[in-house]
This record gives sequence, C-alpha cells and structure tokens, in this order.
Amino acid sequence: MPSRRHLANAIRALSMDAVQQAKSGHPGAPMGMADIAQVLWTDFMSHNPNNPNWANRDRFVLSNGHGSMLLYSLLHLTGYELPIEELKQFRQLHSKTPGHPEYGYAPGVETTTGPLGQGITNAVGMAIAEKVLAAQFNRDSFNVVDHQTYAFLGDGCLMEGISHEACSLAGTLGLGKLIAFWDDNGISIDGEVEGWFSDDTPKRFESYGWQVIAGVDGHDPEQIAAAIEKAKAETSRPSLICCKTVIGFGSPNKQGKEDCHGAPLGDDEIALVRKELDWPHAAFDVPADVYAGWDGKAKGTEAEAAWDAMFAEYQQAHPELAQEFIRRKTHGLPENWGHDANKYIRGLQANPENIATRKASQNALNAFGPLLPELLGGSADLAGSNLTIWSGSKGVSADDASGNYLYYGVREFGMSAMMNGIALYGGFKPYGATFLMFMEYARNAVRMAALMKQPVIFVYTHDSIGLGEDGPTHQPVEQVVALRATPNLDNWRPCDQVESAISWKAAIERTDGPTSLIFTRQGLPQQARDAQQLADVERGGYILVDSEGTPDTILIATGSEVQLAVEAAAKLNAEGIATRVVSMPCTDVFDRQSAEYKETVLPSSISKRVAVEALAKDTWYKYVGLNGAVIGMDTFGESAPAGQLFEHFGITAEAVYAAAKGLN
Amino acid sequence: MPSRRHLANAIRALSMDAVQQAKSGHPGAPMGMADIAQVLWTDFMSHNPNNPNWANRDRFVLSNGHGSMLLYSLLHLTGYELPIEELKQFRQLHSKTPGHPEYGYAPGVETTTGPLGQGITNAVGMAIAEKVLAAQFNRDSFNVVDHQTYAFLGDGCLMEGISHEACSLAGTLGLGKLIAFWDDNGISIDGEVEGWFSDDTPKRFESYGWQVIAGVDGHDPEQIAAAIEKAKAETSRPSLICCKTVIGFGSPNKQGKEDCHGAPLGDDEIALVRKELDWPHAAFDVPADVYAGWDGKAKGTEAEAAWDAMFAEYQQAHPELAQEFIRRKTHGLPENWGHDANKYIRGLQANPENIATRKASQNALNAFGPLLPELLGGSADLAGSNLTIWSGSKGVSADDASGNYLYYGVREFGMSAMMNGIALYGGFKPYGATFLMFMEYARNAVRMAALMKQPVIFVYTHDSIGLGEDGPTHQPVEQVVALRATPNLDNWRPCDQVESAISWKAAIERTDGPTSLIFTRQGLPQQARDAQQLADVERGGYILVDSEGTPDTILIATGSEVQLAVEAAAKLNAEGIATRVVSMPCTDVFDRQSAEYKETVLPSSISKRVAVEALAKDTWYKYVGLNGAVIGMDTFGESAPAGQLFEHFGITAEAVYAAAKGLN
Repeated sequence: MPSRRHLANAIRALSMDAVQQAKSGHPGAPMGMADIAQVLWTDFMSHNPNNPNWANRDRFVLSNGHGSMLLYSLLHLTGYELPIEELKQFRQLHSKTPGHPEYGYAPGVETTTGPLGQGITNAVGMAIAEKVLAAQFNRDSFNVVDHQTYAFLGDGCLMEGISHEACSLAGTLGLGKLIAFWDDNGISIDGEVEGWFSDDTPKRFESYGWQVIAGVDGHDPEQIAAAIEKAKAETSRPSLICCKTVIGFGSPNKQGKEDCHGAPLGDDEIALVRKELDWPHAAFDVPADVYAGWDGKAKGTEAEAAWDAMFAEYQQAHPELAQEFIRRKTHGLPENWGHDANKYIRGLQANPENIATRKASQNALNAFGPLLPELLGGSADLAGSNLTIWSGSKGVSADDASGNYLYYGVREFGMSAMMNGIALYGGFKPYGATFLMFMEYARNAVRMAALMKQPVIFVYTHDSIGLGEDGPTHQPVEQVVALRATPNLDNWRPCDQVESAISWKAAIERTDGPTSLIFTRQGLPQQARDAQQLADVERGGYILVDSEGTPDTILIATGSEVQLAVEAAAKLNAEGIATRVVSMPCTDVFDRQSAEYKETVLPSSISKRVAVEALAKDTWYKYVGLNGAVIGMDTFGESAPAGQLFEHFGITAEAVYAAAKGLN
Repeated sequence: MPSRRHLANAIRALSMDAVQQAKSGHPGAPMGMADIAQVLWTDFMSHNPNNPNWANRDRFVLSNGHGSMLLYSLLHLTGYELPIEELKQFRQLHSKTPGHPEYGYAPGVETTTGPLGQGITNAVGMAIAEKVLAAQFNRDSFNVVDHQTYAFLGDGCLMEGISHEACSLAGTLGLGKLIAFWDDNGISIDGEVEGWFSDDTPKRFESYGWQVIAGVDGHDPEQIAAAIEKAKAETSRPSLICCKTVIGFGSPNKQGKEDCHGAPLGDDEIALVRKELDWPHAAFDVPADVYAGWDGKAKGTEAEAAWDAMFAEYQQAHPELAQEFIRRKTHGLPENWGHDANKYIRGLQANPENIATRKASQNALNAFGPLLPELLGGSADLAGSNLTIWSGSKGVSADDASGNYLYYGVREFGMSAMMNGIALYGGFKPYGATFLMFMEYARNAVRMAALMKQPVIFVYTHDSIGLGEDGPTHQPVEQVVALRATPNLDNWRPCDQVESAISWKAAIERTDGPTSLIFTRQGLPQQARDAQQLADVERGGYILVDSEGTPDTILIATGSEVQLAVEAAAKLNAEGIATRVVSMPCTDVFDRQSAEYKETVLPSSISKRVAVEALAKDTWYKYVGLNGAVIGMDTFGESAPAGQLFEHFGITAEAVYAAAKGLN
C-alpha cells in the first residue's frame, strides 16, 4: 500500500501535468491541498463513484474552483466515469474537464465553481437542504437523510463578501454537518496576502458561531484526520478547519509563491517536482497500487447498499413518506398538479380583481403551496414587501428545521447562491425574493443558476418607477434588460393576477433552468381574455386585444404598461386605426415559439409597432425595428408618488397613442 | 439652552412628521439614532453649513440610507441650505429630499445611500482618499488634509457581504480616522434579527483589526461622547462604536418593534410621541432655542477660516504643491494634457502594433500616468491579468499611504463602491479593474457611480470567449448589454491599441459620469486610419472602411470582432457588394452625436446591416432593425482555446460574409 503522501502526489502529478499540457490552469491549489484531499476522500467521504447521484452521499464542493484539477484528479482516482483521457483533455472543447468544474460535465461535480465565494455558499445551501430534508423525512431510527457537506476554500473565497453572508447564516442556522477547509497558504494572485488580507479568520468564524479548528498543518495527515474527527463530532455548529499549506507543494522553485497559482510550472520545474516528490512516472501514468489505494468503488457500493437496505425498511414503515421522498428527489410534480393549477387560473380569469402582481404572487403561493411541499421559500429580509410568506409557511431555525421558509436576512447574493445549492441538492423547489433592484447584488448567482440549468425561482418585486417614493436607488431601469440577455433564464413580467399565476406555474414546471418572476408594488387592472387567450399566455406573448380586421399597428407591452397599451388601442381603434395589443409577459418563452406562432402574433408585414415598458428600452428594438417606437426610461428614476412619475417620465396611454399616431 | 435630549427630539419630530406627511418612509432609524447624531453633530463634527464643499470637512455617511430624515433633519437644523419647506416636501417630485439621500440634491449629502452596505464602503473609500491625499500633500506642520470620516450603519449594512469586504480592507489599511456607529437595535424588516443575524459583531470587527467600543448606550450622551473621544484617540485603527438603541425611540406603542421601521407611525401614535417626548410643537415647527442649539454655522465658518489661514501659509511655503492641490480638488486636467495625449495617440496610429487591448491599456497608463498624479489605481487581485500596474505605480499600505495604487484583494463590489467614495471625496481619478465577468459582483456599485455622476473608471479585461480555457464561468456574454443599458455609463470596447488609448482619454476627460473600459485578453491587429478617422474615434462610432461609391451593406462591429468585419468587407467589396465597416467602440457616445453625424455613418436608406460582437446580441437590433442580422452569442461559452471557440460559436469573418450575402 502506497503511503498517504504518495497517494497525494498522484494529485500533484496529474494536476501539474494536465495544466502543462493545456498550457494554462492552476497547479498551485491542487498541489497545496492534495494531502487534505487524500485524508478526506479516502478516510471520510461517504460517496459511491458508481453512482454519483446516490441521494445520501456526502457533498463535496471545491469553492476555489480554479483548482479544478484537484477535483478531476479525485474523481478519476476514486473511480468515477472520468477516464485518464479526459484529464489529458483538460480545458479542451467537448471534454468533461473544463477549466473550472462545470456542473453536468464530469460525474461527481456537485456544482460549478470558479466565481469565488459562491462554492462555499452553494455548500451552505446544500447543508441547509440536508438539514431541512432530514427534518421533513427522517423518522424513528430511519435517518434516510444523514450526511456531511464538505467544502474547500481559499483566501479569495474568504475575501469575497458573499462568504460573510453565507457563513454568518450557516452559524445562525447551526449547520452542524457543514465542514469547511480553509487553504491558508498566504498567497493570492497579487502575491503575499498580508498586504490586503489580514483578517484573523479563526476569530471571524468564531464570531459567526462556528467551531474553529485552527492551526492544522495541511500536510500532516494525522492532524488533518484528527481535525475532521473533531469537526464531525460537533453536530450543532458548522466547523472551519484552518489548514496551513504551501501553495504548489513539491515544486522546489515555485512552491509558496504566486508564480505557481495560475500558470503551468514549465517542463523544467515539473522534472524537478518529479524528483522532489519521488514520482518517477510519466505524465498521466498512475501506478496500479496508487489506483488501488484511491479506489472508492467497493466502499461506496457497500455504503449505498446499506442505505438502500435501510430505505427499503423505511418504505415498509412509512410507505407514503418514502413515495414522497422519491417523488421529490426525482423532481416529479404531484399528479393533480396540472389539473388543480389550471382550475385556479381559470377561476382567477372568471373573478377579476385589480391587485398588485406581488399580491397576486402571494395568492398564487397560497393556491399552489399546499400542493407542493417541495417549495422552500424565503426573502432577503423583505417578506412583508415581497409577499413571500403564504398560509403554510413555517420558518426554518437551528432548533427546528422541519419548516419550508428561510429568513435569509439582508443577504441577496448569499440567498441566491444558497438557493442554487438547494436546487442542486435536490428534493426542493427553492424560491427567494428581494426587490428587483437588489437582484444586482446577487446578479452572478442568478447567472450561475442559468449556467447550471437549475430550476431556481427568483421572485423580484417593486419592478419599476411604479414603486414610487423610495426613489432612483430602488427603481429598476436596466435590470430586466440584463436578465433577458442572460441565456437560459426565463423572465416573466405579468400584467395582472392571471398572468402572475401562469408565470408561477411556468416557473414551477420548468426543469432545465431558472425563472425570474417580476412583480409590481402597485395595483394593476385585470385584463379580459377568452379561453384561447388564456391558453396562449404561457407562450410568453399573445394577442390580448385585436382590431376588427387586419391590424395596421401593433402595441407591445408588459406588466404595468399593458393597461396603457390597452387604453391607447381603444382610442386608436375608435379613430379607425386598426390596432392590436400584444401582451408579452415573457420574451424568452415567446422567442422559443414556432415561427408560425410568432408570425401570427407579430406579422412581419406590419412594421408600425410601438413597445411600451417603464424600463430601459434596449429589449424592444428586436421587436419594433428601426421604424418602430419604444416608450420607456432613458434615465434613472426619481422619488415621488408613482402616478406622478409615470406622467413625469412620459409613460402614459397618451404617449403610446401619440407614438402610434406618429407612425401612421 | 435646551437639553441634549430636547435637541435630539427635534430630529424625532421632524422625521416622524415628514414620513407621516409623505405617507411613506422610515421613522424608526432617525428616532433611534437621534441621540447619537446630536452628540456627534453638535460636539464633534467639523463642518461648515455655509460651505458644504470645504475640502477639509469631516465626512458623514448615513449608510442606513432609508433613515434619510435623520440626515435631512441634521442638515436643516445645523444650517445648510435646506429650508423647512424642503422637509415638508419629503419624497416629492423636484424636492431636495428624496426617499433616500441622493448625492447632488440636498447640500451636505456626501453620497447616495439606500442600497445597504454601500454607504459604509463609500466611507471606507473616503477614508482611504483622506489618508492618501494627506500623505501626498501634508508637509511639516501643514496638515492640509486632516479630518475624520464618520458613518452610521444598521444591521442590514452589517449583514450585506460588502460590509465584510470594506471593513476587512479598512482594518488592513489602518484607517485610523474612520469611525463607524452601529445602530444595534435588534430589528430588521422581518422582525427581531436574532433568527437570521446572530453574529458577535464586536468580535467580527476585532478580527478585522478594528478598535471596537462595545456596549455603548445609544441614548446616553455621555457614553456616546466618551466613545467618540476614544475612537478619535485611536489613530492607527478604524473604530466601531456599538450603540444599543431602541428603534423608534419615543413611540410608546411602536418603539422596539419592526412596525416603526418602514411605515408612518400614524396620527394617533404621533400624538402620543409628542406627549412622551414633551414636544408640544406643531409638525415642522421647531422653536428658536432648538434651532440655536443646533446651529453649526458660526463654528463651521470659524473652522474653515482657520484652515484657510493655514492653507495660505502652506501656499507660501509650498506654492507648487498648493497649486496642484487646488487643481486636483477642482478636477482640472494638467495644461499639457490634451496636447500630450493626442501626440501619444497619433504615435500609436503611426506605429502599428498587434497586441491585446489589455496590454494597450497598460501602455496607455504608462503614457498618461506621468501626467496625472491624481490617478489612484487598483485591481481586485488581478493586477497581472488586468495589467493595471504601470511604471509609476506605488502601493498604498497602512504605514505608507503616499502611493497611487490599491491592492483591493478579491473584493470587486467593495473595490467599486470604495472607488465611488474616492471619487466623491475629490482629488483623485480612481480606476480599478477585474475580469469583465466579475463586474457582476460589483454591478450595483457601477450603477451607483452612474446615478451619482461620478467619473470613476472601471477597467474590465478578459471580455469574451476570447479569454479561452477558463470557460463559461469567466466568459462574458450578457454583461456588456447590461452596462450599455445603464443610464449615464459610457462603455468602450476598443478594437486595437489606438481605440484603447482614445477610450482611456475619454474616460479621463469625462467629468459627469463613469466609464467602463472593456479589453481583450488576446492580441488584436491594428486597423489603419486616416486623420479624420482617427479624430472620429472619439465620437463612439465611425466609418473604419468604406466602399467605393455609396455602400449597399453596412457591417457594424466592436473590439475583437472589428477584424472579422474588415475581413468580410474586403471579400464583399471584391465581389462587388459595396460594403462599409463601422467600428462602434462606444454606442453610448455614438448615440449622443448629432443626427447628421449618425446619418452619415449609418444612412437610414441602407437597411442591409450586419452587426457582429462575440457577446449577447440584444444591443444591436437598435442599429440593424428587423431586416438586419446580428452575429453573436446565444448561449454561454465553453472551455477551450480561444480560436476554437470563435469557430465553434460561428463568430468568424466567414459568418459575417455569409450573413451579408444573405441580405443581398
């Protein structure tokens, strides 16, 4: 049996060689953390390389994702479907080994990391999910959900603000099964960190209520193992293991320096490392005894089999719970979902109410919530404004995690990346809310949800100058343009309670990406629809009001401006200008419709088009072209009552009417 | 002389009455922090209500900006040009008293606050600016720059991640003149914070190296004064004064509860407060003795006069320094600036080099840096990649602040909001860099720079799939669309070293808003230009290549895709399809040109238009219309060498050629 150090050196060799072959990448972190990884993955991690989706596996997150070769090495060595050929293709097109770990590429990659600080936050989300799912499903002696979440993180993650948001809440929620390893190597890209990062990190994490295991030598397996034992023994607080390491460990001339952080070591230095580490094997050549020392398949299969046996007994004892567990883990919707949701929507259409869409959103939650115990809601300290609490909401706390609602605190970015972690974990449909403006604090986590194809539901209220007196710092202008430009993100801005409920239904049914639901603070009138129109809402854009005969002019609107288009169209039609109103609550979904459908809604023969939306105009030129008109915001907002602002900025039915007249 | 409590009650009365009159707003924080504000503003703050722009005034930042009535009350009571009529117009259109404090509306408002955590970060930026400017200009006994920066902050600010970034760096840089007051009232919008915010905040700030003054009764003037004395006495570390307060202090039924945080108290409760506080005066009626107790004009005039006298002596002793101080504080450029900058640019055009625009950016810094000692640069731990260090760069540290470069660490949001604070402070042109993707971490601070019209320079490198192997987490797609949609933000994406230098020149010369400079990682060929074309670059868009005779087709491109358009145009022109290439490095500036100029570049008669940019397409429909074509990114990127990615995603000269042919 090779020594622990020799096993760890396999990571070092694979990492430096793959980076060298790719001519780019980050050898320093894998070489520095190899010893920690060796102890964790061979002695502690409960996982099954034969089944990366085993529900009760320990989760492992490499928050310092630039060290991707560490993770790829671990997955390869322990027996995942990641052959050596894939490691040779590190950072190449169509490989499973992109520059940063990307969810969905290599098996065993639990989340996409690279944007610093988000990995540890995903891990906090996973640990929340584990705790809540356990509280919801574990019974008697059946701990069907019972495992650790491990995260590696570097100085960069700790400098990022999101680490504060996530680790603070992790402490408050008492996530005792979360164990983080700080790669304390004293180096970041710009050099020795002391000039820009002098926190007393152990003290900082103590202030969050974590167990801090300080002063661990990250190259001493015994110290590492003892620290992990201690961390696992503490079940009411998360643990931070502070590991002193040498970046690029084993590189005689580059270790301990920033040079080895983000560039290949070079052939000469690599030759020296081979000597230094007594690793005489060729690049990508791993001896059989080393593979044997790493192989986790037998142990993993055994662990999963034991869990399977326990779950079989659980199924006997709690058949309905077990069935529900399986449903939730496989993302199935309840059988009656479609029927009940459509019934609710038809009822709304038949019983008009003029309410704010944020209120319509809450009503939808009250209607859909009882059908969906997988909903795990929350808000970044704006529950009363976002209206995210419904009649069945119950808060999750350190002592009682059986609820379905998270008080995230004023932590928009943390909330969003935690929701990503919760979605990745499985068993939940996370939704979380803030004001649309403060989506910007969380922006990159929203993008990461889209990149990872996770069905996270982002609820954004107070969607325009219509929020009124809070003024320009709070009034969205350009935010929805940014959301719509994001690949794989569906963005709904409904105009009334009917479109609001349908947008919620679409978000809940989506499986391959996130949805943002954009709601007003202010009340909106309900629009009339026949059955076909009601069915067409889910196509993202549809004819809400049509002219008699072929239209001459088309008005396109979303959300609070649909009423303006409808009013202007009435006047135009009355004057003999045949005008159609297209309500376009979701451009993303509309763009995915068939060319035929799009042509029926927006016939290419009609070039007289006016779009109106109380936001930046950039979205709309695609639909109105060079000859059309767009009514929207060219500047930031102002602080005043909403009605005055719409007048002040010229976003009125009169302006829509005038713009259409100007084209005629 | 009224008692301190009575003076503080003036704030409470004005705040509750203004919120009531506006029917919206936040009375809780002003009422809770009134006693602290009274001690600070009457006993300690060195400021001159007659001259809000006095260079050496203490800075005051209300980071919990929703408590705006606290600041408006202070400005009104101490004698700023903010008459009681303006307080009566709280949150109304065209008033100086918007819902959140907006820079440029009321005199004495040092920065716009409301987005939580950014105010304290602006304050850190101001304290950095004070420290650096002092190190650069103070001589002998002349402390021309020597004052405090004070900030009020609430639980929300402390929960936000950006507070970690800013306060950590403030500790590392030893900002001894920064004094922050934590309004520890235990309440946030969702209720009692203990369920979502249980940090040991004093311990947290100790971990950052701050002096923490804990356990201060925020309603006891003596304790508050003693704490401020202690904070001022500590000159090598920032200080946090932890003030236990009662939110909504004075409201018999609502104090200490979230009810008073963000809603009017109601007429009945207001009547009870009047009794409770023994404040019998009518709404907006402040007795003369209370005004007299608050009036800061005489003391402020005296303080400024003393400084003026000192500065006059400094002018005698150090005439050149004094002149330079005045130049920098009045935002004037050096006399030779325009001449030297243009000479450099002409030299670049005459001496072509094919380099990455990030390298061209560094070259421009080397050329312009020696002319501009006001440049205060930095990077979020990516100096070697962003190429932000030039030959004259010198790091700023706790012990030596005389440099011109900040190692911000991995803190994009913190860096950006600190730059806003530095710009607001005056005397500097801050620039700071990260990868374009991680602009998203800082997104709302970029917006705040635009909203506050601050000439901050955001440098963003690695601007597309052209960065290659780091993959989709690092490859921008939709980011530039978001930047361009932001009002008052100019965004340059230059195509070669010439456009790069011109974009730097434009950024440096801009006085009324921020600029983002977007550079490639990869090398780009230099384009040929005659003198007129060279002059037209600064118009944001211009004819780079024209056809013989009237063009039939127009290709529009930016940055790394200009070379593709040029290559495609050559082929099209050779085939007899008269083709023009428009280089459009800055759509924002181009859109501000005269209609005539825009018509000469993009004649409305020419509808065959192709835009090409290796980013999301949304920007371009405005320029190509419904009949044109856009070549860009519809999805996220991939990890691979850059050349392969451009092929993979079909962003090639061949594709541009084919699209143009398709229109012909």
